[in-house]
Amino acid sequence: MNICKYSYEEYLDRVKSFHGNLAPGLVIGGFMVDLAMKNLPKGEFFDAICETPVCLPDAVQLLTPCTIGNGWLSIVPFGRFAITFYEKYTGEGVRVYLDTKKLNNWPEVRDWYLKKKKKSEQDADLLFGQIREAGHGLLSVQKVQVDPEKVRRKKTGPVGFCPVCGEAYPLRDGDSCRNCQGETPYSSVTAVD
Amino acid sequence: MNICKYSYEEYLDRVKSFHGNLAPGLVIGGFMVDLAMKNLPKGEFFDAICETPVCLPDAVQLLTPCTIGNGWLSIVPFGRFAITFYEKYTGEGVRVYLDTKKLNNWPEVRDWYLKKKKKSEQDADLLFGQIREAGHGLLSVQKVQVDPEKVRRKKTGPVGFCPVCGEAYPLRDGDSCRNCQGETPYSSVTAVD
Repeated sequence: MNICKYSYEEYLDRVKSFHGNLAPGLVIGGFMVDLAMKNLPKGEFFDAICETPVCLPDAVQLLTPCTIGNGWLSIVPFGRFAITFYEKYTGEGVRVYLDTKKLNNWPEVRDWYLKKKKKSEQDADLLFGQIREAGHGLLSVQKVQVDPEKVRRKKTGPVGFCPVCGEAYPLRDGDSCRNCQGETPYSSVTAVD
Repeated sequence: MNICKYSYEEYLDRVKSFHGNLAPGLVIGGFMVDLAMKNLPKGEFFDAICETPVCLPDAVQLLTPCTIGNGWLSIVPFGRFAITFYEKYTGEGVRVYLDTKKLNNWPEVRDWYLKKKKKSEQDADLLFGQIREAGHGLLSVQKVQVDPEKVRRKKTGPVGFCPVCGEAYPLRDGDSCRNCQGETPYSSVTAVD
């Protein structure tokens, strides 16, 4: 049983190295990407959508050329455990999701996924054993038609200097940058020489 | 000249492998992470903020344990070319940004960054040469106090089944999942057996 071009064990090693720990969701995410790749429609360039920021973006980034920084991976905040790959021009795509109808076959996965047990009550060996045993068995596949404009990163467009902070920013944001318009997460900023 | 634990050339190889191409912004991003790491305040656990989704998240993901999927990397959509690392409990942090006051020393970088030239008019060798020569020289450092609540990923909280699609979703989103409330990017969905 492989996950894309890696053996299961190699994939787990890559997960630990990139993600910092062996998250159950990221192991399932590996099977999701693998299943999606086996069901891609025709096309040359595929962009990705994760329907949650939790775990799944790292499966996509580990296993495909799509990353957050290159703009080929988008995240929509639906909190659904699903990954879509779509042909970037036509929008034709495949969506793989964790199928709640199949969860009862793997009770430890079900209880983890539906948060029926606290982390301290989970049996990690049993959970990872069931995830591996299930493989694609927890998943279902849909054909989807994506509207790429709804998910794709907008181009930055013309840039100018913010009159408040002096940094370059996208002029489409207004007369000053969004940080200086009040969205800043910083309560204090001090220059360091 | 190193970029964190990599030689400059090793870092470029990792960029090409992960990001798919040698983006100027991601090379500068490597120097930004390197400079930030040399100026971290005291603390054990640092979370990251990128102030743009363009390129910089990949520098953070390549060079630190912070990823989108593990939640230690957040993106705020300010379109400023800046990366912050902050101690996850105290919010004490260091912010590194591309300092527009320093751009005139590196005119090819300036013209690329401020979009003064079309891509076809850029001299890639000169651009990458100036980026490498500049290193930290394009950047400035600030001490910042971060309000972690403003950037950190919210916990999913209790989950239930969406009455429309049947998939699990965060109950905080309402009576159905956000996809089925109308935010969907899919114009058609068809099950595949």
